[in-house]
Amino acid sequence: MYRSHSCGELRTSDINKEVTLSGWVQKTRDKGFMIWVDLRDRYGITQLIFDEERTPSDVVDKAKTLGREFVIQVKGDVIERESKNPNIPTGDIEILVTELQILNEALVPPFTIEDETDGGEDIRMKYRYLDIRRNPVKNSLMFRHQVAMKVRNYLSEADFIEVETPYLIKSTPEGARDFVVPSRMNQGQFYALPQSPQTFKQLLMVGGMDKYFQIVKCFRDEDLRADRQPEFTQIDCEMAFVEQEDILNIFEGLTRHLIKDIKGQEINDFPRMTYDEAMRTYGNDKPDIRFGMKFGELNSVAQHKDFKVFNDAELVIGIAVPGGASYTRKEIDKLVDWVKRPQVGALGMVYAKCNEDGSFKSSVDKFYDQEDLSEWAETTGAKAGDLICVLSGQANKVRGQLSALRMELAERLGLRNPEEFAPLWVVDFPLLEWDEDTERYHAMHHPFTSPKPEDISLLDSKPGDVRANAYDLVLNGNEIGGGSIRIHDKETQALMFNHLGFTPEEAKEQFGFLLDAFQYGAPPHGGIAFGFDRLVAILGGQETIRDFIAFPKNNSGRDVMIDAPANIDNVQLKELHIQLDL
Amino acid sequence: MYRSHSCGELRTSDINKEVTLSGWVQKTRDKGFMIWVDLRDRYGITQLIFDEERTPSDVVDKAKTLGREFVIQVKGDVIERESKNPNIPTGDIEILVTELQILNEALVPPFTIEDETDGGEDIRMKYRYLDIRRNPVKNSLMFRHQVAMKVRNYLSEADFIEVETPYLIKSTPEGARDFVVPSRMNQGQFYALPQSPQTFKQLLMVGGMDKYFQIVKCFRDEDLRADRQPEFTQIDCEMAFVEQEDILNIFEGLTRHLIKDIKGQEINDFPRMTYDEAMRTYGNDKPDIRFGMKFGELNSVAQHKDFKVFNDAELVIGIAVPGGASYTRKEIDKLVDWVKRPQVGALGMVYAKCNEDGSFKSSVDKFYDQEDLSEWAETTGAKAGDLICVLSGQANKVRGQLSALRMELAERLGLRNPEEFAPLWVVDFPLLEWDEDTERYHAMHHPFTSPKPEDISLLDSKPGDVRANAYDLVLNGNEIGGGSIRIHDKETQALMFNHLGFTPEEAKEQFGFLLDAFQYGAPPHGGIAFGFDRLVAILGGQETIRDFIAFPKNNSGRDVMIDAPANIDNVQLKELHIQLDL
Repeated sequence: MYRSHSCGELRTSDINKEVTLSGWVQKTRDKGFMIWVDLRDRYGITQLIFDEERTPSDVVDKAKTLGREFVIQVKGDVIERESKNPNIPTGDIEILVTELQILNEALVPPFTIEDETDGGEDIRMKYRYLDIRRNPVKNSLMFRHQVAMKVRNYLSEADFIEVETPYLIKSTPEGARDFVVPSRMNQGQFYALPQSPQTFKQLLMVGGMDKYFQIVKCFRDEDLRADRQPEFTQIDCEMAFVEQEDILNIFEGLTRHLIKDIKGQEINDFPRMTYDEAMRTYGNDKPDIRFGMKFGELNSVAQHKDFKVFNDAELVIGIAVPGGASYTRKEIDKLVDWVKRPQVGALGMVYAKCNEDGSFKSSVDKFYDQEDLSEWAETTGAKAGDLICVLSGQANKVRGQLSALRMELAERLGLRNPEEFAPLWVVDFPLLEWDEDTERYHAMHHPFTSPKPEDISLLDSKPGDVRANAYDLVLNGNEIGGGSIRIHDKETQALMFNHLGFTPEEAKEQFGFLLDAFQYGAPPHGGIAFGFDRLVAILGGQETIRDFIAFPKNNSGRDVMIDAPANIDNVQLKELHIQLDL
Repeated sequence: MYRSHSCGELRTSDINKEVTLSGWVQKTRDKGFMIWVDLRDRYGITQLIFDEERTPSDVVDKAKTLGREFVIQVKGDVIERESKNPNIPTGDIEILVTELQILNEALVPPFTIEDETDGGEDIRMKYRYLDIRRNPVKNSLMFRHQVAMKVRNYLSEADFIEVETPYLIKSTPEGARDFVVPSRMNQGQFYALPQSPQTFKQLLMVGGMDKYFQIVKCFRDEDLRADRQPEFTQIDCEMAFVEQEDILNIFEGLTRHLIKDIKGQEINDFPRMTYDEAMRTYGNDKPDIRFGMKFGELNSVAQHKDFKVFNDAELVIGIAVPGGASYTRKEIDKLVDWVKRPQVGALGMVYAKCNEDGSFKSSVDKFYDQEDLSEWAETTGAKAGDLICVLSGQANKVRGQLSALRMELAERLGLRNPEEFAPLWVVDFPLLEWDEDTERYHAMHHPFTSPKPEDISLLDSKPGDVRANAYDLVLNGNEIGGGSIRIHDKETQALMFNHLGFTPEEAKEQFGFLLDAFQYGAPPHGGIAFGFDRLVAILGGQETIRDFIAFPKNNSGRDVMIDAPANIDNVQLKELHIQLDL
């Protein structure tokens, strides 16, 4: 038996017990006659003491050889600690060691195994197994497990069945790029790794499975943007005999449960907002509603004077920055520079300070009088002491620019409190979006998303205006879930394919098995998928997902620890009937 | 709202309620003035009644158009059923329908959606989404979910953390063939899909994660034997600071819990048996101990006469077949033929009947007298009325042959009761096994399995005799789990690699990152992995795993429903820097 207790559990009530502990040497302090060792395991840290007068001399000698991260086993007695450490749960006791066994030595680790380490991202990834010893990573992985258990138990209680769908499936040309797997037994053919279990969960609905979920790995061979992984985890869900409202209610329930159970917070307000409203009010389909700064549309109160910039613009919008009237000229210039960065792309910014005395001072005083500016303040909700920032231009672009500015200012003003949770449903997404490259409409969600029945008549005249029964769950400005009610009848499906530019033959070739299935009694159904990595990170109060993934890949899709991907030998290639084409 | 109740929940206490149900038309009976429809969903079947006198005539007319597997929604009143059906929970009531909506029509399914279907394996796989509507498949998938939940909750309660390990890893030449995934971003390089998370779970132990588990898909590109799948699911576990005994106890606990919780059976006896004993007593390292028929070693009581076949044999062994003395000559001849089949490979079989009067009649009466045969009976445990079957030859071969016979006879005698559960640990597996092809020793488990310390001295002299700290969990004659204590110090690891014929350079190339990790303070650790598909099937009382997998592949590794693997287009190949080599 390697241990009678963990390094996190001994208390004063255990004093005088003889115990056996195992773990890693966090640090040693050698005073010559006395040696202290902090022994660490997953559960905590316990202080060991080796005392020349009370510990056998050979044990003391051995203790002097201990280095950082050595793995040891000790036997000893729990005694009261002279100088207690109130910062750790075991801080009232220590172990007077009588026996010491070195289970394994350790090279000096390439970075410190401390909460605040001296190791940079790259070295921590290469030695991820050492990084995992650090509390921030270890706790994140344990937290992820807790969230997964809570999700599974909640959905299982609600009669959902977790069904494992296959990983070796078929490549489809729609959507993002697939990872493919050459088949040895089927020469020249390939499996694909699933981008999501979408078709299988719909087939499960046709199969009568009714309430399905799965926490499942998905794969996308995309050029990796920051904080994306080629393999990622989804909470994938589908239900039959439901309308959009049923799905929103069930998963609103799950979200409330998680936030309550994990963070102890009751969510009072769980608003629903249309896509149009989100775009108009926040310039963004995943607005962070933990703070205000809603957009004010200023066209009617800004296009009546001789200011050509505004007059030529499709849209003039502004936000009120709380307390911003106190910004210096230099600070405001910096803001203007910030919106003019290529990543944001504004051509300039107009501002108006709302002075404490009720007067206004703007960058366009030449064109607008106090009464005009007072209307701006009213429209943007600006109060005395605030700064009104105004952008103008083509509607879609300027909304995106002002949204970026809003988020940046909120970050600077500390309005994005990671311990506050503000979920939101964004509903009524457009069914189709115009693709500039191919000059045709694409399904915004996927080709099986159902249009709102009342909008179907617009499919020919104004395809871009057709709304879908599609919805996103947004949490603190992040899209953490998205889904839709699916088409389940072949007439609507044919209509959709037609509008997406598929011939019936193409539709059959690409989605044949699903279309076949739909002819054998497909029930009305719909679903949702949550990005689990992101959900866990946000619930854990973090912006990045990497520490919530045990062995993440870098931005080139490499696992630098195991050095994958790697070359494979020619025998393997030959067996797979492929050759390199470099 | 598509339904107020499921098709499985209405009872006499619901009579007079107005309800809405949705589901599939299981069958219709049209008596002209009255139509009955069995409506089915995941939860059960409810009888609908359309009555010319009480149902609006347009509804009756529409009901007459319903075909099998149509998806419908009905509104109606719960009424008492005239002729009750005691076989289903809703058999006391029926729904007098007032409104009917056809949600989707259905083609006539290619096989009947009944427990006993008229569809063969192939057609059921092609239309798996229809097969899943059948109770045997649906219930198996729901059962699988329940088992998974119980496993997760049990291990989580025991402080295990489920950690997701990566699916895109590195190919290793050891073991079975990997599926590989060409990397687009890393030209000419490949990921591999994991055959198991073995190295990652060991790295988690180095990372201090201490108690790890994961229910995880694994992949092996093997030629598929019956009832094997290229992708399969494992309950993968690893623990640090444990000895073999700790691991056996924990997972004995899990096994007992599952059998108790799922089958209501208390396991009294959970024996441990050495590999040697299992081979000697049952000729098999995964003996089914639900029944006896233990091997009797007859060398000493069969090699003292002039029977050359036995005298030349390395081993003479027999089993007692309960009640077999009544077999006719013809039946026994058939048994002899059975053991001579190429799949078994015996050259012949000697038998002796234990007559009720205490006398014996054998096929070798020419050589052996009644006293000899009496000793045979004693050694094999044969009683009056039994048949002793004796095989002889090279020890390993003859054990395998007699084991096959033992299993076959048990099957015929109905001794393999699927509702009885007899788990067993087989321990002390050999560390190495001789490979005829390469003429060298291979690791029986994997190269990181630790030898028993007391046997290390035999590594040079008798490598085949070295036992490992390796163990299998056997349930009803199936290996459902296997694992080992791992090597965690570099001296023993070097010794192992040396005996497996690796140069230090080769070891570094293939297992470098793990060996590196072992230098930074690896704790003693060990683990086990369960074949989840098999475990679920056995707990479900089935011999084959296929119905417990939602979308299985056939023996050529094909998914015949979605028709995968499939060709991919040249653009895709080009992006991946590979070309076909057919």
